[in-house]
Amino acid sequence: MDIEWLISLLIITKPSKLSLSLAKFRSLSFPCEHLFDVGFNVFVIILLVYLNNVDIDLSLRQPGYLHNLLPDSAPDHPETVEQVLDDVKTKILPGLTHWQSPTFFAYYPSNSSVAGFLGEMLSAGLGIVGFSWVTSPAATELEMIVLDWLAKLLNLPEQFLSKGNGGGVIQGSASEAILVAMIGARDKVLRRVGKNALGKLVVYSSDQTHSALRKACQIAGIHPENCKVLKADSSTNYALRPELLQEAVSKDLEAGSIPFFLCGNVGTTSSTAVDPLAALGKIAKSNEIWFHVDAAYAGSACICPEYRQYIDGVETADSFNMNAHKWFLTNFDCSLLWVKDQYALTEALSTNPEYLKNKASQANLVVDYKDWQIPLGRRFRSLKLWMVLRLYGAETLKNYIRNHIKLAKDLEQLVSQDPNFEVVTPRIFSLVCFRIVPVDNDEKKCNDRNRNLLDAVNSSGKLFLSHTALSGKIVLRCAIGAPLTEEKHVKEAWKVIQEEASYLLRK
Amino acid sequence: MDIEWLISLLIITKPSKLSLSLAKFRSLSFPCEHLFDVGFNVFVIILLVYLNNVDIDLSLRQPGYLHNLLPDSAPDHPETVEQVLDDVKTKILPGLTHWQSPTFFAYYPSNSSVAGFLGEMLSAGLGIVGFSWVTSPAATELEMIVLDWLAKLLNLPEQFLSKGNGGGVIQGSASEAILVAMIGARDKVLRRVGKNALGKLVVYSSDQTHSALRKACQIAGIHPENCKVLKADSSTNYALRPELLQEAVSKDLEAGSIPFFLCGNVGTTSSTAVDPLAALGKIAKSNEIWFHVDAAYAGSACICPEYRQYIDGVETADSFNMNAHKWFLTNFDCSLLWVKDQYALTEALSTNPEYLKNKASQANLVVDYKDWQIPLGRRFRSLKLWMVLRLYGAETLKNYIRNHIKLAKDLEQLVSQDPNFEVVTPRIFSLVCFRIVPVDNDEKKCNDRNRNLLDAVNSSGKLFLSHTALSGKIVLRCAIGAPLTEEKHVKEAWKVIQEEASYLLRK
Repeated sequence: MDIEWLISLLIITKPSKLSLSLAKFRSLSFPCEHLFDVGFNVFVIILLVYLNNVDIDLSLRQPGYLHNLLPDSAPDHPETVEQVLDDVKTKILPGLTHWQSPTFFAYYPSNSSVAGFLGEMLSAGLGIVGFSWVTSPAATELEMIVLDWLAKLLNLPEQFLSKGNGGGVIQGSASEAILVAMIGARDKVLRRVGKNALGKLVVYSSDQTHSALRKACQIAGIHPENCKVLKADSSTNYALRPELLQEAVSKDLEAGSIPFFLCGNVGTTSSTAVDPLAALGKIAKSNEIWFHVDAAYAGSACICPEYRQYIDGVETADSFNMNAHKWFLTNFDCSLLWVKDQYALTEALSTNPEYLKNKASQANLVVDYKDWQIPLGRRFRSLKLWMVLRLYGAETLKNYIRNHIKLAKDLEQLVSQDPNFEVVTPRIFSLVCFRIVPVDNDEKKCNDRNRNLLDAVNSSGKLFLSHTALSGKIVLRCAIGAPLTEEKHVKEAWKVIQEEASYLLRK
Repeated sequence: MDIEWLISLLIITKPSKLSLSLAKFRSLSFPCEHLFDVGFNVFVIILLVYLNNVDIDLSLRQPGYLHNLLPDSAPDHPETVEQVLDDVKTKILPGLTHWQSPTFFAYYPSNSSVAGFLGEMLSAGLGIVGFSWVTSPAATELEMIVLDWLAKLLNLPEQFLSKGNGGGVIQGSASEAILVAMIGARDKVLRRVGKNALGKLVVYSSDQTHSALRKACQIAGIHPENCKVLKADSSTNYALRPELLQEAVSKDLEAGSIPFFLCGNVGTTSSTAVDPLAALGKIAKSNEIWFHVDAAYAGSACICPEYRQYIDGVETADSFNMNAHKWFLTNFDCSLLWVKDQYALTEALSTNPEYLKNKASQANLVVDYKDWQIPLGRRFRSLKLWMVLRLYGAETLKNYIRNHIKLAKDLEQLVSQDPNFEVVTPRIFSLVCFRIVPVDNDEKKCNDRNRNLLDAVNSSGKLFLSHTALSGKIVLRCAIGAPLTEEKHVKEAWKVIQEEASYLLRK
């Protein structure tokens, strides 16, 4: 089927008016003959974006631009779907940062796919809210099954599977996964030592850990000075040294503090550093510290046998997190959290008001995911992950990951061949960290130059990068992982970077 | 256009195989010629559900049923979309609780609509992650604009609009809204009195408040004994009496505790009780207590001038929450939170790692919603609310609400005419609380009978109710508000309830 032809056909097909009278309202509110018409038009917009056929007016991207383009208040009467979709095209699309573009290399990817999209459609269309088993048994059960599937693909230890005391759950984000694990760990230790000891609880991580950990500490009431941030440097490629942890724990114990939570990383946000899980886990275990492993981005790669080594030692963890919405073709949000002790979560997060009581829950026959998360309500998110796994299959997903890693290897090669640039830390997965090298050892000027390079590259509108700082060096990050990225996009991106750099270096 | 015809046409249209080779993968991963085919089939499933053309095998709804129907591990190779959608029809749909069914009267509604669905489609298709302004300016700006629109429809005080220090933000759920408000309030007071005073902080609410408040206290580290639950009874229709609050606050102040958070309700979950906001707010203000108003369900009704009175006094609140995903035709999740002091949130929830820094944020030119919420990542949820407001218009939405309230009034009338039943609290919005009346003043037997009635009605598969307890009485809740519910559905539901009751009363 020819896409161009389809699009012109669809554009000609005028959608029916959505102007509503109350009398017609009920039949329109869901099963409606217009759904197909209008759905088509939405498809067209999505396709237009992905075929890059939309003229993007970058001048619109000024703070407050949209306030000047939309009215001050909601309309009293219905507008037509053409009016709304026209505004989407002319006012909304130009103000988007196109995360699905093949030349989006910033942050980490946030994958969409046909399977993930269909899962979202189904979930939105069915419109169930699965907070307790009884509010949609299939939603809870599919989530348990699919999380078991993925645990097996990752070769996680059996204690993380749903058949015993453990199990997996879909959170909205890695931030929520860390928070939920921390609250479970916090309340477990406070039940032992008394709730007034909160001020003595200590959290450990390397300084490369995602800011989500600090935020979780803030929310959970851990005192800021008890968030021990241990220095990691280039000597370990920014992995946490177990000796540093042991030292810090011993010192805190001596001072009467209570070490209770350790966050280990597999693939940090700055540079994909991988902490030595087994050694860290051993220290955690012998000190009764909850060990959370954050593999939000890199976890996906560990379904490939050749990358599984990076989570070796996960058997010592109490909780493990990977974001299927990053690099696993599952639309945001879908953050997977596994725990060995589900009761640590449910004892901290359960509520049981009369209006939510039901026989299945009271007989303890079922899992009620409301008690494994912060919110009460929850969408049917396992559908999309299930559809991704079934419609693509594990082998295709492994090859998908491998292809991105290969593209990153190629880029690493290109960077290291250019004397104006250096690869700052060895590439492990699909992120390349690089910078313009300093001239005359002037690191300050070098940082400014790399900041300027970032601005120049992103202002070109041709690609989008982000940056970080490693040991004081400003570093550009090129994260390969958008579903549409091919070799040509990476090569073109590198050409733009080189051109902008040579212009800056001439200044 | 004839729906039956469309469906048969679509069923005949076989979708193309989704079997993938890696070579084809990239072109398939988003803009793909199959999207239309497969999208059609998903539409068909959704329509089938809503036209009730699916045979639901209720016997499948046993704990663990799905484990027996699905394989133990993910497939290595792609399955076809027919296989997956067939499983959706035969294994998933029978295990759903149909929240969008016109005879779903349990909990509170969770509205879907064509406009909300299209918004979800667009959001999933565009696949952006709008945590900072720069990661998609349109997403942040549309959210500010649409929340301003709704604040104006609700006639909220100007301080809640985005032009000053206040503003609105979309949270995932009312639970997160309460938690975010509480963390903001907690840290504001702790900055004044020192972080070691956490154990002295006191939260107030009536005993009718949603369990989300207790959960927020648990997460925020508020000591359980400092969550003061004030008794509300039938004398005030379960509204909190200001004198009780004043008394509790005075007592706590005398004891050296620090009152810091009050949750007022507009439309409680049990019985739609409405607390006297103005009187409560006055007490809160004179004691420097953060006043949060939870109008998760009933807030929607307050866009109608005749129901706006129920949030009179909201000008004394520090934060106000209403769920557009309950009774406002916007697909879950879309919980709207307004605050007067955005800095209370951002000072508590901000993180600013190097890898997220950007010029617009650092120049303080923009709102970064990541600092107004628990997670970092966020979907483009304002799109669906914007489409609901534009495609239906405020007048249609008001009439939508009024129609449900009229249906509830009719049911209230029917209940009160039947000597076997009583309406337990006066209906205010679209929830009717009723029960079989006790015989010989035997309240225990009466409670058992009402529990049995609930089981019998829900086991019939014809409708779905939930229950609560009010002053020790087991009460059935009939919450009218599903988009497809019409007069005939309410009448039929009442007939089923009467029949089951008369059968129970004969026993």
